[in-house]
Amino acid sequence: VRSQDPVVLLEQARSGDRGATGRLLSMVERGGAASAAVARTVYPDSGHIDRVVGLTGAPGAGKSTLTDGVIRQARQEPGPVGVLAVDPSSPFTGGAILGDRVRMSEHTTDPDVFIRSMATRGHLGGLSVAVPEAVRVLGAVGFTTVLIETVGVGQVEVEIAGAADTTVVVVNPGWGDSVQANKAGLLEIADVFVINKADRPGSAETRRDLDNMLDLDPAMGEWRPPIVLTTATSGDGLEELWTAVGEHSAYLERSGERDRRRRRRLIEELDRVLVRRLAADVRTLAGGEVYERLTSAMLARAVDPQAAAAELLAALGVVA
Amino acid sequence: VRSQDPVVLLEQARSGDRGATGRLLSMVERGGAASAAVARTVYPDSGHIDRVVGLTGAPGAGKSTLTDGVIRQARQEPGPVGVLAVDPSSPFTGGAILGDRVRMSEHTTDPDVFIRSMATRGHLGGLSVAVPEAVRVLGAVGFTTVLIETVGVGQVEVEIAGAADTTVVVVNPGWGDSVQANKAGLLEIADVFVINKADRPGSAETRRDLDNMLDLDPAMGEWRPPIVLTTATSGDGLEELWTAVGEHSAYLERSGERDRRRRRRLIEELDRVLVRRLAADVRTLAGGEVYERLTSAMLARAVDPQAAAAELLAALGVVA
Repeated sequence: VRSQDPVVLLEQARSGDRGATGRLLSMVERGGAASAAVARTVYPDSGHIDRVVGLTGAPGAGKSTLTDGVIRQARQEPGPVGVLAVDPSSPFTGGAILGDRVRMSEHTTDPDVFIRSMATRGHLGGLSVAVPEAVRVLGAVGFTTVLIETVGVGQVEVEIAGAADTTVVVVNPGWGDSVQANKAGLLEIADVFVINKADRPGSAETRRDLDNMLDLDPAMGEWRPPIVLTTATSGDGLEELWTAVGEHSAYLERSGERDRRRRRRLIEELDRVLVRRLAADVRTLAGGEVYERLTSAMLARAVDPQAAAAELLAALGVVA
Repeated sequence: VRSQDPVVLLEQARSGDRGATGRLLSMVERGGAASAAVARTVYPDSGHIDRVVGLTGAPGAGKSTLTDGVIRQARQEPGPVGVLAVDPSSPFTGGAILGDRVRMSEHTTDPDVFIRSMATRGHLGGLSVAVPEAVRVLGAVGFTTVLIETVGVGQVEVEIAGAADTTVVVVNPGWGDSVQANKAGLLEIADVFVINKADRPGSAETRRDLDNMLDLDPAMGEWRPPIVLTTATSGDGLEELWTAVGEHSAYLERSGERDRRRRRRLIEELDRVLVRRLAADVRTLAGGEVYERLTSAMLARAVDPQAAAAELLAALGVVA
């Protein structure tokens, strides 16, 4: 019989049982009481990861091949590597992309590489709560490097990227317009830029576009995100990328920024957990006579949803 | 001086002032008190739209060209057409795609076609609250057909699709694996399937894949989603698509399903508005001594975020 006790599972996972690691992560994904128990168990020992690196960018940017290359670089250093391949873009592409991702990695048979796909839907903020929890599980198990690959683009991915110490944003040659249109978001999250598929035409222009964008960033601090050109399929530029990640890591350490980031991230995570729990309880909060009266009035077009929500919360005394 | 009074703006919008319509939609997007005032103003008269049609699918499926073609079909019937082009996928592709969308439509100069792009980030569930509100604005202004085009894929899009009476899911030839991997989500939202770019190889196989999926749907009711082959660039299949949308609309009417859907959707929207308001108040809820003590304990790795959230909510007496 497989144990469901997080304490037992963590012990098994630490002695190299990858199945136990997988079961802990499944409990995190499920949420609820199981997730809370895992969180409590791993939390005290989860702070010993050297590097949490996020790789993010639009579909088709070549992130999977790039991640495989980054794993190769990370494996030249001591310590096992954990990879979370996160896809919030179900229902249209999720399963397929992630299935391929895990199946096709060149590292599937390396006992010191653990690749796990995470996808969920229907939970408000589900992944942005589950991913940092999953990173802590990997940390407590003993992984010294954790890579978070997000397959997709959007608000949820930005939140997920927030779980990493160093976020690598992957673009392709010819994405200048897209870069220009979204510079605020890119500047907000990127610690390192990668122009992947750099053997294609247009990589010089894309580098120039990124450089111009960085030149004009009013919030630029001590760290200016380097731009690395890679061709993941041939391996070109991967060593430079890993060096850039290491330099960012050293900067974080030296400047005290790592601690500040981790603190800020924990506070944000607490807020998200609070919102999630409140959301789960909305139906409960909302039950009863006032709720029935207000929904009837709303369906009769007498009260709009915003007014109904305001009245309901006031009646419940939840919000001043 | 431009009025910010929703009552005045609604009157102007009804007499054909598209700038006033745009300002009402901007107020909806901003959220907060302005949005609540607009919601209150338009709600009583917002129920007279004949058709709310959603078009959704992965990037690259050709939705923009398809939407242009659908507008052409809708314009052969009386009444103005409103289009909301919604992109939740910022920061990577959002602005660029939507800018093109509005700029490149063949209907830009038609006074009875109003195209509006909506994109927002950083607001938890922002678009899934703003889109149904925007649809009601268009209804109160007098638009009889509203199209909602979602540029992107994912959980938020599924929620947005829920604001439509009829949801058209767009796929391309060769997407069989993706369809198979995501059948649960597709079956949940699709009222009509379109295989666009049907002149490319593989459309027969994709049709067969979709048909097999529909054959095996255990929850299939009276309506079986038809599969329409289109080539939006040449216009092929667009009349069939519009006919299929009309047939779905007639089915909704005949079966009473339209009223049931609209009721269910309003209740879901109330819940989302409640969650959003609670989220906005989390910081307020969370202020004070207990919050400070718990966040300190959390940063010292003594209490994990889930446990901290539970303790905090209990201390505040918000949740039983």
